[in-house]
Amino acid sequence: MITIKNDEISIGNFRVRELSEKFGTPLYVYSEEKIKNNFIKTLKTARKYYKNFNLFYAIKACNNPHIARILINEGAGIDAASINEIKLAKLLELKGNKIMFSGNFLSDEDLKEGYESGAIINLDDISLLPRLLKYGTPNIISFRVNPGYGESNVGEWVTNAGPKAKFGLKPNHVLDAYRNAQNAGIKRFGVHMMPGSCLLDPDYFHKITNMLIKIIIPIFKELNIDIEFINLGGGLGIPYEKKDTPLDLDKTMKGISEIIISKCTQNKLKLPALYMEPARYFVGDAGILLGKVHTIKRSYSTIIGTDISMNTFARPAMYDAYHHIYIDGKESHPRQKFGICGQVCENTDYWCRNRKLPKTVGEGDLIVVSDTGAYGYGMSYEYNGRLKAAEVLITKDEAKLIRRRETFNDMLKNVELSNEMIKNLTK
Amino acid sequence: MITIKNDEISIGNFRVRELSEKFGTPLYVYSEEKIKNNFIKTLKTARKYYKNFNLFYAIKACNNPHIARILINEGAGIDAASINEIKLAKLLELKGNKIMFSGNFLSDEDLKEGYESGAIINLDDISLLPRLLKYGTPNIISFRVNPGYGESNVGEWVTNAGPKAKFGLKPNHVLDAYRNAQNAGIKRFGVHMMPGSCLLDPDYFHKITNMLIKIIIPIFKELNIDIEFINLGGGLGIPYEKKDTPLDLDKTMKGISEIIISKCTQNKLKLPALYMEPARYFVGDAGILLGKVHTIKRSYSTIIGTDISMNTFARPAMYDAYHHIYIDGKESHPRQKFGICGQVCENTDYWCRNRKLPKTVGEGDLIVVSDTGAYGYGMSYEYNGRLKAAEVLITKDEAKLIRRRETFNDMLKNVELSNEMIKNLTK
Repeated sequence: MITIKNDEISIGNFRVRELSEKFGTPLYVYSEEKIKNNFIKTLKTARKYYKNFNLFYAIKACNNPHIARILINEGAGIDAASINEIKLAKLLELKGNKIMFSGNFLSDEDLKEGYESGAIINLDDISLLPRLLKYGTPNIISFRVNPGYGESNVGEWVTNAGPKAKFGLKPNHVLDAYRNAQNAGIKRFGVHMMPGSCLLDPDYFHKITNMLIKIIIPIFKELNIDIEFINLGGGLGIPYEKKDTPLDLDKTMKGISEIIISKCTQNKLKLPALYMEPARYFVGDAGILLGKVHTIKRSYSTIIGTDISMNTFARPAMYDAYHHIYIDGKESHPRQKFGICGQVCENTDYWCRNRKLPKTVGEGDLIVVSDTGAYGYGMSYEYNGRLKAAEVLITKDEAKLIRRRETFNDMLKNVELSNEMIKNLTK
Repeated sequence: MITIKNDEISIGNFRVRELSEKFGTPLYVYSEEKIKNNFIKTLKTARKYYKNFNLFYAIKACNNPHIARILINEGAGIDAASINEIKLAKLLELKGNKIMFSGNFLSDEDLKEGYESGAIINLDDISLLPRLLKYGTPNIISFRVNPGYGESNVGEWVTNAGPKAKFGLKPNHVLDAYRNAQNAGIKRFGVHMMPGSCLLDPDYFHKITNMLIKIIIPIFKELNIDIEFINLGGGLGIPYEKKDTPLDLDKTMKGISEIIISKCTQNKLKLPALYMEPARYFVGDAGILLGKVHTIKRSYSTIIGTDISMNTFARPAMYDAYHHIYIDGKESHPRQKFGICGQVCENTDYWCRNRKLPKTVGEGDLIVVSDTGAYGYGMSYEYNGRLKAAEVLITKDEAKLIRRRETFNDMLKNVELSNEMIKNLTK
């Protein structure tokens, strides 16, 4: 997404130095073109092998509505994890079957509002059905299946399937779930599975799709259900490390399509629509986080102190996640190993150790953390009085502020201020 | 902090059931009385052994100004990690030497504003001194010393001292740091150390205090400095698990005081003031997080689904931290093992495994997570469209809302809304 010319880093037509001067740091910067291209490539590749294919954007990954707008313009629906994410979709004029509501461990209020929103509701457990039915009988419904197997490239705790995951129906609950739904008068059905997180191996997607198909086809035959859609969730990985081989999307989609088409044909089932709901794959490599170097500390080890703290960007502290790092103006310089940290009073914030970076790095330099478009701003928070960053979208002609930087007053926005506090605040 | 009578859980005069009905869940609830008592006990115990002793509250742990107000009323100063935390202290009318500014990896702007604020500045590295001096010469200054040893009960990543920590001056930098400050015309000095995090062993505090004293005394003698204060930071632990032995505060403070008094006397140094800046020790066990059970899922394992998600309370997901859990109305019932999770679409949010809880737990039950007063609300965030909780303070007569629950509009507060978004938002 970035270009480097004479060591100067740019995004589109804008040098990061200009961006930092105009908008300050830390700053999340997204490329409209890259987001659009990632989406179009995915849609085109999938439709080569499966005509009736559509995409939903899992808005949790980056919930700025300006980012979602880019994808919606290209035909995406929204995968919402909560009522507030449904509201985001409605802010962008989506409705009905363009919104997939895949919450988990929902409250009755969630179920009621989900039903009333008109979104397609995807139930995570058999126990949710009777609770949903209190509010009405949906036209169409899906259940999330957990085939008992699942992997993740983001560590054990981000596995979305398998026996250690909190998600989805066990295979031996699937028949009862759909039968109960039929008995309640629901007529149209889909099925959902989230295969895993950030996976780069096509064979993995083929294996787990096969597992799902083997579970659901006998059930749909037994219940005489014409399944309307199979939603294979997300999990399409991006190569965070230079050594990672990018996912072969063509091979992935070809294999998935063949499995579904051949198994449905063999079993004389109508071909369902095929959906996926990626997010990282659209926005992950379309965003960077721009920060500033404030201190070089030469102590027990040599540490680059930046304004990118664990609260600004949680993935390295939280998941030990790798993100490639660049120093503006110095990329061609000789290298040595450094640690990198932020400004939070907690050692978790010493978020990168032993990274080879330009020896000449110094105070005032700009640091670029790459591939921060997904689960970057969306997981950021206030801590130690360090506030949330701003977000900028780079279009062809413009570097457009799409979310303002937080201020001290934002920290207090929901505090019930006493007279003393009000007096001192307005001083 | 809680009381249980006929299985019903209360805080002060308020049943958690009433609180949930009045304020909703998830809800952070604090006890004014407990906070006050924790502070008074600490101050009294320390002053038994060291007359010139004072306390600063590390406001990062729970930054609601109403909580800080309770401690300030009893004589606490504020330990601020950033300019915004200094602003919080000023909101509460503190100034000058009642504010300790212990930032790390500060920007020039931080140093300038820190200097102008009149707070006592505690420098984390020798490299910060010349940068601070650009803005003026402070009356008094301290340096944070990292003695090369440090432990934590919150896991490796929250160690505040030792060679793996990003904090403080190496012993062999301390002489130069103070000499440089003297040469720059600074006349008054303190010294700071953060011993560790959440420690329960008095001997640990004695050992590390000894290490600090051995490093600094020869230096202060050589430079002919009358040290004005020794700030021993925080690290006073609380017993999160029933099996933990509470810290023997009396023994801890007695030993620390004896070390300082005897070494200063031996070396013919004036006795400095002694400061500490705990936070967990004041507020940790004075807060609970109240949530609701929404689903009991019986799948690969049996999981209690609650509205307490990883974004509402990060410590279990982030540090694998243990917090004792109660189910309102059912504490005397027979028990079995459960997992507990929140509503976020990420398995990190399956934040507790294999906890023995009442077998009878069911939808609508209230769950109480104990000891969440420190690093609870302060590390919470929006994620998956799940918003930040409300905060309530229990006083003698009142359950007082001190921070309102976030709303959908809060999620959008800094988004530069397009005309389309504005139109749909006001619908």
